[in-house]
Amino acid sequence: MNPQQTIVALATPPGTGAIAVIRMSGPEAIAIIGQVFQSRSGKKIEHEDSHTVHLGWLVDGANKLDEVLVSVFKNPSSYTGEDVVEISCHGSPFIQQLIIKLLLHKGCRMATAGEFTLRAFLNGKMDLSQAEAVADLITSDSAASHQLAMRQMRGGFSSEIHELRAELLNFASLIELELDFAEEDVEFANRSEFTQLLLRIDKALSRLIESFSSGNVLKNGIPVAIVGEPNVGKSTLLNALLNEDRAIVSDIAGTTRDTIEDEINLGGVRFRFIDTAGIRKTSDTIESLGIEKTFEKMQQARIVLLMLEAKKCLDTDWMQEQIEQISSKYPSKPLIVLINKVDTISELERKEISTRTTSFSQRPNQQIIMLSAKDKSGMEQLTDQLLGWIDQGVLQNDQVVVTNSRHYDALTKARQEIIRVQEGMEEGLSSDLLAIDIRQALHYLGEITGEITTDDLLGNIFANFCIGK
Amino acid sequence: MNPQQTIVALATPPGTGAIAVIRMSGPEAIAIIGQVFQSRSGKKIEHEDSHTVHLGWLVDGANKLDEVLVSVFKNPSSYTGEDVVEISCHGSPFIQQLIIKLLLHKGCRMATAGEFTLRAFLNGKMDLSQAEAVADLITSDSAASHQLAMRQMRGGFSSEIHELRAELLNFASLIELELDFAEEDVEFANRSEFTQLLLRIDKALSRLIESFSSGNVLKNGIPVAIVGEPNVGKSTLLNALLNEDRAIVSDIAGTTRDTIEDEINLGGVRFRFIDTAGIRKTSDTIESLGIEKTFEKMQQARIVLLMLEAKKCLDTDWMQEQIEQISSKYPSKPLIVLINKVDTISELERKEISTRTTSFSQRPNQQIIMLSAKDKSGMEQLTDQLLGWIDQGVLQNDQVVVTNSRHYDALTKARQEIIRVQEGMEEGLSSDLLAIDIRQALHYLGEITGEITTDDLLGNIFANFCIGK
Repeated sequence: MNPQQTIVALATPPGTGAIAVIRMSGPEAIAIIGQVFQSRSGKKIEHEDSHTVHLGWLVDGANKLDEVLVSVFKNPSSYTGEDVVEISCHGSPFIQQLIIKLLLHKGCRMATAGEFTLRAFLNGKMDLSQAEAVADLITSDSAASHQLAMRQMRGGFSSEIHELRAELLNFASLIELELDFAEEDVEFANRSEFTQLLLRIDKALSRLIESFSSGNVLKNGIPVAIVGEPNVGKSTLLNALLNEDRAIVSDIAGTTRDTIEDEINLGGVRFRFIDTAGIRKTSDTIESLGIEKTFEKMQQARIVLLMLEAKKCLDTDWMQEQIEQISSKYPSKPLIVLINKVDTISELERKEISTRTTSFSQRPNQQIIMLSAKDKSGMEQLTDQLLGWIDQGVLQNDQVVVTNSRHYDALTKARQEIIRVQEGMEEGLSSDLLAIDIRQALHYLGEITGEITTDDLLGNIFANFCIGK
Repeated sequence: MNPQQTIVALATPPGTGAIAVIRMSGPEAIAIIGQVFQSRSGKKIEHEDSHTVHLGWLVDGANKLDEVLVSVFKNPSSYTGEDVVEISCHGSPFIQQLIIKLLLHKGCRMATAGEFTLRAFLNGKMDLSQAEAVADLITSDSAASHQLAMRQMRGGFSSEIHELRAELLNFASLIELELDFAEEDVEFANRSEFTQLLLRIDKALSRLIESFSSGNVLKNGIPVAIVGEPNVGKSTLLNALLNEDRAIVSDIAGTTRDTIEDEINLGGVRFRFIDTAGIRKTSDTIESLGIEKTFEKMQQARIVLLMLEAKKCLDTDWMQEQIEQISSKYPSKPLIVLINKVDTISELERKEISTRTTSFSQRPNQQIIMLSAKDKSGMEQLTDQLLGWIDQGVLQNDQVVVTNSRHYDALTKARQEIIRVQEGMEEGLSSDLLAIDIRQALHYLGEITGEITTDDLLGNIFANFCIGK
């Protein structure tokens, strides 16, 4: 990572398209394009203004490589804060290679993964959590993950962390100053103000740490366990959900042979449906292993769907037993009871079930929906219920959410240190020992915004980027 | 195809990358971006100059979709000749979709394949053969095909055709004028000048028609048949050629079970190596079918490689017979005899073969190379020979080459009409009959440059483009 070097990379996805964009950044970017670009206007590209686009030929000596558009961005008004040149060429992989080879030959070197964004961070164009949001944004594939990344990119919680850290740093300095006057037993730092600050920091960190759970779930998909006997219509249901929303489905190889996950995007939120075996009582060892797995999956899920066959539900005791099996074990977990195949029973029977179910003592996080996955009836009610139960507030309000496990980790560690400081204060710990814990907290908070970085940390973060960003 | 509508499409390859570019063209392009773009500078995008780039947020109402760069190109100074806006966004397919959906919602419609280039043609930004070169350029995957497409895009032969056609059109008008004065028996068109022009046109068309064969071969790969018994080392040779040039290999399913084609890029030229069965004499029906195929492949190939095992070549009669089998059948086809596995014979034996082969009456288009594909010795000599024999002149001179079968077809038909006119002149055909043939020739010539187009013709040409170009 030598910012003196000019770097180059393909910025658009690999493959054939109408156009491709090759990006250069560094002190020589404009001089290098000057050597290989013949503007149609005849004007030297070096003399053009920042943020202008120019049509012309890219040449290697007398050999014309391609007719291109060249955009010039002069430092510091560019993505990286350095001089940046973007070449928009014809989208043949062969031409892309020709041009990159030429630029390497003229003195560029290939950019490493995330190096453009790393330079942007090093040049103060964005803080570290904003830089990380760029990678999240590029990989976002649902409305929820997109919105979370956008919010983080626009500043997110790092400005809040930055301010709290500045206040804490101020107190740390005062407390460390006391050490120099240790024998005089003075207190520069107002202890009650400091206690107030610690409380505020603790509250902010706790809120952010708690948001990770829902933030992470929104980013990675909300796990929903579907419990039901074979042939009760689980896959028909998943297909029906798919069709309704023209959503994307993908099979994820489960960790066990008997678990299949389907990702379905409903109303901009990704759900991970986890198909499980049923849970009827058995003495069979193999089958009871399957039931154990089912309970495990239900434990991990945010929402449980229990699918029952309409005909069987005419036996009210049986139905109640099925529901009790789950709700007694996970009383606080949202449960949707799906009575499927209502098309196979009569209107009268339907009404009967409906009447009986309302008489059940339903908990507020329990719903009964009658549907026919085959006929796609009742699907909308299910979708609304699923979306209603997830923490929509997180998306709708402009509330700050932590989705990055590195941030979660640093926040958790920072909070542990803050708690130690609070305890130390209560126990009347000496300033020198307090100062050590405060420094630790400052360190972890600084890691989030990038005020404190190590090469290892930067290496880890930017290695996850694609090349060209 | 309504040029009043503003079109939109993804211009970069599909998939995830650092950035993606979405392109709009049409009368509403700038007004539409004005509705959804909040420039960081605060200035209205509608008031910005052409060929400038602006950083800001793309918004859907209050919802920020992405931080983007917007480039503005005002008509007629754009690719299409219309107002063009390019949005460089973060390269997530999800974000690409969001943005395109938003633009569709604001009044754009999805561009059809090649529609941007079609508009460029309709607005006089390029002629038809230049437009076709754009598609060739995007799919070019070797130095040769790239160079041919570049030359065609820079004007190629269409300017020549255009001028000849203008002269012919002039004569056609004069001859048609004669029809109005038919009873007075006047000649406005100078018959000897006209004969001269027809000769010039015939010559130009003949040259272009002839260039198609080599042009097409350069574009699609030069077919080289490899003849040799199993285990003589054919696949080892192909692998050795591959390694030497870090070239791209791809398997093409042959039309017959016993033919495999490998594409290898040597010195920027693509060769298609066609593996064939041997050709020893046999009475076996199945085997003689294989031999027939071998001859067929040799017939189609530009160059034949005959691979023989070094040990067997110590038998001079046998070797001579092997060579004669091919050279007697295809005396004019370039033949390279490869004596492989020279590592399995002694230095002395090698010299012996070498001495004997020089005594053979070699034709100028016949070469004997001793090599070891296994040890990769002699490979350079083979590569040099292959490149030496192909029509390098076509690439090195700035000579015009026809590579497009549509052009070849129109050129051939135009020449047929020119010949009919010439014959008509000789036979003293009346002006009215001459005029019909001249009109036909003008029609076919016009089809190349696009001076004459039909919706069908345009539809066929642009359907082969990718969307976004």
